[in-house]
Amino acid sequence: MNQKIKEDNVKIYKGHIIFTESPEKFNIVENGFIIVENGKVKKVVSEIPEEYKNIPVSDFGNKMIIPGFVDLHLHAPQFPNVGLGLDKELLPWLEEYTFPEEAKYKDLDYARKVYSRVVEELWKHGTTRSVIFGTVHKEATSLLFDLLVEAGLGAYVGKVNMDRNCPDFIREDTQQSLKDTREYLEAHIGKSDLVKPIITPRFVPTCSVEILEELGKMAKEYDVPIQSHLSENTGEVEWVKELHPEHKNYASVYECYNLFGQKPTVMAHCIYNTEDEVGLMKNNEVFVAHCPHSNLNLSSGIMPVRHYLNKGLNVGLGSDVSGGHDISIPSVMAVAVQASKIKWLETNKEFAPLTTPEVFYLGTKGGGKFFGKVGSFEEGYEFDALVIDDSNFFGDDLTLEERIQRFIYLGDDRNIIERYVAGNKVEKPNF
Amino acid sequence: MNQKIKEDNVKIYKGHIIFTESPEKFNIVENGFIIVENGKVKKVVSEIPEEYKNIPVSDFGNKMIIPGFVDLHLHAPQFPNVGLGLDKELLPWLEEYTFPEEAKYKDLDYARKVYSRVVEELWKHGTTRSVIFGTVHKEATSLLFDLLVEAGLGAYVGKVNMDRNCPDFIREDTQQSLKDTREYLEAHIGKSDLVKPIITPRFVPTCSVEILEELGKMAKEYDVPIQSHLSENTGEVEWVKELHPEHKNYASVYECYNLFGQKPTVMAHCIYNTEDEVGLMKNNEVFVAHCPHSNLNLSSGIMPVRHYLNKGLNVGLGSDVSGGHDISIPSVMAVAVQASKIKWLETNKEFAPLTTPEVFYLGTKGGGKFFGKVGSFEEGYEFDALVIDDSNFFGDDLTLEERIQRFIYLGDDRNIIERYVAGNKVEKPNF
Repeated sequence: MNQKIKEDNVKIYKGHIIFTESPEKFNIVENGFIIVENGKVKKVVSEIPEEYKNIPVSDFGNKMIIPGFVDLHLHAPQFPNVGLGLDKELLPWLEEYTFPEEAKYKDLDYARKVYSRVVEELWKHGTTRSVIFGTVHKEATSLLFDLLVEAGLGAYVGKVNMDRNCPDFIREDTQQSLKDTREYLEAHIGKSDLVKPIITPRFVPTCSVEILEELGKMAKEYDVPIQSHLSENTGEVEWVKELHPEHKNYASVYECYNLFGQKPTVMAHCIYNTEDEVGLMKNNEVFVAHCPHSNLNLSSGIMPVRHYLNKGLNVGLGSDVSGGHDISIPSVMAVAVQASKIKWLETNKEFAPLTTPEVFYLGTKGGGKFFGKVGSFEEGYEFDALVIDDSNFFGDDLTLEERIQRFIYLGDDRNIIERYVAGNKVEKPNF
Repeated sequence: MNQKIKEDNVKIYKGHIIFTESPEKFNIVENGFIIVENGKVKKVVSEIPEEYKNIPVSDFGNKMIIPGFVDLHLHAPQFPNVGLGLDKELLPWLEEYTFPEEAKYKDLDYARKVYSRVVEELWKHGTTRSVIFGTVHKEATSLLFDLLVEAGLGAYVGKVNMDRNCPDFIREDTQQSLKDTREYLEAHIGKSDLVKPIITPRFVPTCSVEILEELGKMAKEYDVPIQSHLSENTGEVEWVKELHPEHKNYASVYECYNLFGQKPTVMAHCIYNTEDEVGLMKNNEVFVAHCPHSNLNLSSGIMPVRHYLNKGLNVGLGSDVSGGHDISIPSVMAVAVQASKIKWLETNKEFAPLTTPEVFYLGTKGGGKFFGKVGSFEEGYEFDALVIDDSNFFGDDLTLEERIQRFIYLGDDRNIIERYVAGNKVEKPNF
C-alpha cells in the first residue's frame, strides 16, 4: 500500500490551468490539477498521483485557474483621482491633482476611508501582490500596511520621501523625513510574511542629495528594497539634467546613492532611458514597472518594452493609479499590447508587438519575480491564484488560449470568483 | 389660468443632465429637467415651466442623464471573435479570423444565436444607434435588421457586397450580389422608423468595378446611405493603388462610383488619407468613423482626429467589433483620447490631444448627426438617453464634469440603469 500524504498541509485544485513559465507561450493543462503543499505549488498534473488520492479536490469544473496578478507600481493615495484630471501632462498633473490629494493623508480618518477601498479594489481585481507608494505620512502609510495585512494580500508599501521642489503643504523637512522613514521601517520589518516596507524616494526632482544618500544607506542597513520613478517624461528628464549636471544621466543619480539595484529595485516608467541606463538596469537587475495606461493618459510616450525584453531586463506591469485610470492588471495587459503595436509602427517595425502570452507573463511572473517565487505555477512557487469564470462570454468552442485572451481583453472583476495568496483563500476584506 | 399641456405625449425626466451641444464643453444642468414631447426633446430646464406642472416627473435623483451612445461602425457577425486573433494585422486577420466566421451566417440558426447576443450587448452598453455591417447573406442580415426593430434600437444595417479578392467560400457572384442587395433594400425600406438599410460594399479591394457602379446607382435610386472602409492600413492602401492605377487615390474610387457622399456616407478608419481625400470628404460631407481600439489592435496606426476636426469633417466613433474588442462606446472614447495623445507626441505637439468633452461629443452628437437630430438634448433632438448611476465609484465631492469623465474612463454596463430611444424606454431584449 502506498504511503499517503498527510491531508493537513496539502490542497488540490482542479480546473483548466493556465500560466506562463516563460513569455513565449502559455502552459496549459486542460482539466488539470494543482497540488499545493504548505501554500506552495508542488506540481501541476493531468492525473492525481496515487499518493495524493486521499486528498479532497476543489473542483472548479470548466473554469480557468491562473496565477494572481502582480502590480509593480501604484499610488494608493491617488485612488480618489482615478479617471480624473487626464487632460494634463506629468508635471502640471502632479501640481494640480496629485499633491493636493496626497496632502489629505495627514488625516487618518480620510486615509482609512480611501485605503480600505483601495485594498478592496486590489482584491476585487485579482491583484494578489503589489508594490505601492503611500504618501509622506508615516501614520497613514502604516495604516495602509496594516489594512493589506488584514486583507491577506501581498505587498511592498513605501512611505514617500520628498523634501524639495514640491508645494510647502506636502514638502518634508529632510531630517524629519529620514526619522519618520527609519521609524516606519523599524515598526514594520518582520511584521508580516506577505506585506513588507520598501524605501520610496518619490523621484530625483523632489529628493535632496542628502535624503537620497541616507535612504541608500537605510536600504542597506535594513536590507529592504527600493522603488522610485525614472524617465517618464521628456520635461522631467530635462529637469533632472538641470538639477544634476554632475551626473551622466538620470539613473546614475539613483545609482550614485545606492538606490539602483544595490538592493532589489523597481523603477516605474523608463520611457526615455538611454542605452547607458538600460545597461545599468541590466547589470544591477533593476526591475522596470511598465505602466502603459498612465503613459498614454499623461501623454508621456510609449516605453520600448520589446527592446528591454531583448536586453534581458526584468519587466513587470504597473497600473500606476491614478496616472493610470484602471487598477485592473488585465486592462493594463491589453493596453500594453496596443501600445507595443504603435511602438512597432514608430520603430519602422523593428520592435515586434507584445504577444498575448508575453503580456500575461509580464503581469504575473515578470512582476512576481520581485516577490521571489511568485506569478507562476512551477514547483516551489507561492500559490497565488485566481479562478476565472468566463461563462458570460459568447461562444463555447474556444480553445483555452482563446479563452484566456478574451478574458484579458474583455474580462472584469465579475469573472474572478476566487482568489488565493500564498495558499490561502482570500475573502473580500471586511473593514 | 395657464393652458396645461396634454399629458399623453409629454414626459419629464429629472436628474443631472449632461450633453455636448458643441465639442468645446459639456452642457450641464445640475438637478435639471428634460421635457420630452412626442419622443423629441422640447427643452432642458432648471425649473419646470408653469404649463408643464401637471405632468408627472420621472425623478432620477443624483443620477446623470446623458445622450445614448452612437456607434458608427461595427461588424455584427464578427462578435464571436471579440478579444481573439489580435496578434494579426488587417489583411491576415481578415483571411484567418474574419472571413471564416462570416461564412457561417448562411446558417440562420447560427445567425440568430449571434445576432440576438449582439443586439443585447448593444442594449447593455447603451449604444442606442449604430451603423452595422452584416455579411453577404441577405437572409441573415434581414434577421439582424428584424432583431434590432424588435429590440427598439436605432440602426443602419447593411448586407455586405464582395465579389473579388476574397476566399471562394465567401465570395459572391456579381449579379447575385446585386440582386440580393436590391431585394434586401426593397424588403426593408420603410419597414421601421428606427432601423434602415444601408448600401455596404465591403471595401474597394473586394468589390469589382461593376458592383461599385451598380451600388452607386442603387443608393441613388432607393435614396439610401452608404458605408464602407477607407485607408485603414498601409498595405491596404498600396493594394488599392495596384488595383486602380487609373484613380488618383483610394477615396476617388468610391467617389467615381457615387459612393462617397452623393448619398450620406460613413467611411471607417481613414488613417492614411491624403489631403486630397480629406478635402473630398469635407466637400462631400462624408462621415469618418474613428475606431481607435481596432486601429491599435490591428497595428493599423493612429487616425489624425485633430486634423480632421480642424478641417471640419464629420467625425464619430466606432467600436469596429471585432477589430475592436470592446463594443462599449465609453471604452472607445477613453482609448480615442489615449491615441490622440500619442499622435500629439508623434506630430511634435502639432495635433492637440482630444479633451473629454470632445470625445464625448464624438460618441454622441458627432456620430448622431448621421441619424439626423440624434446625440444631443437640444430642442428637436430625438430623446435617446441613458441614466447613469455612478454611486459605486469612490468620492462624493466631485463635480458633474468629473463624474462623467470618470464614467467614461471607468464605467461599465452596470452603471447604465435605463435606456431610451426616440422617447421610448427600451428594456432588455427578450429574444
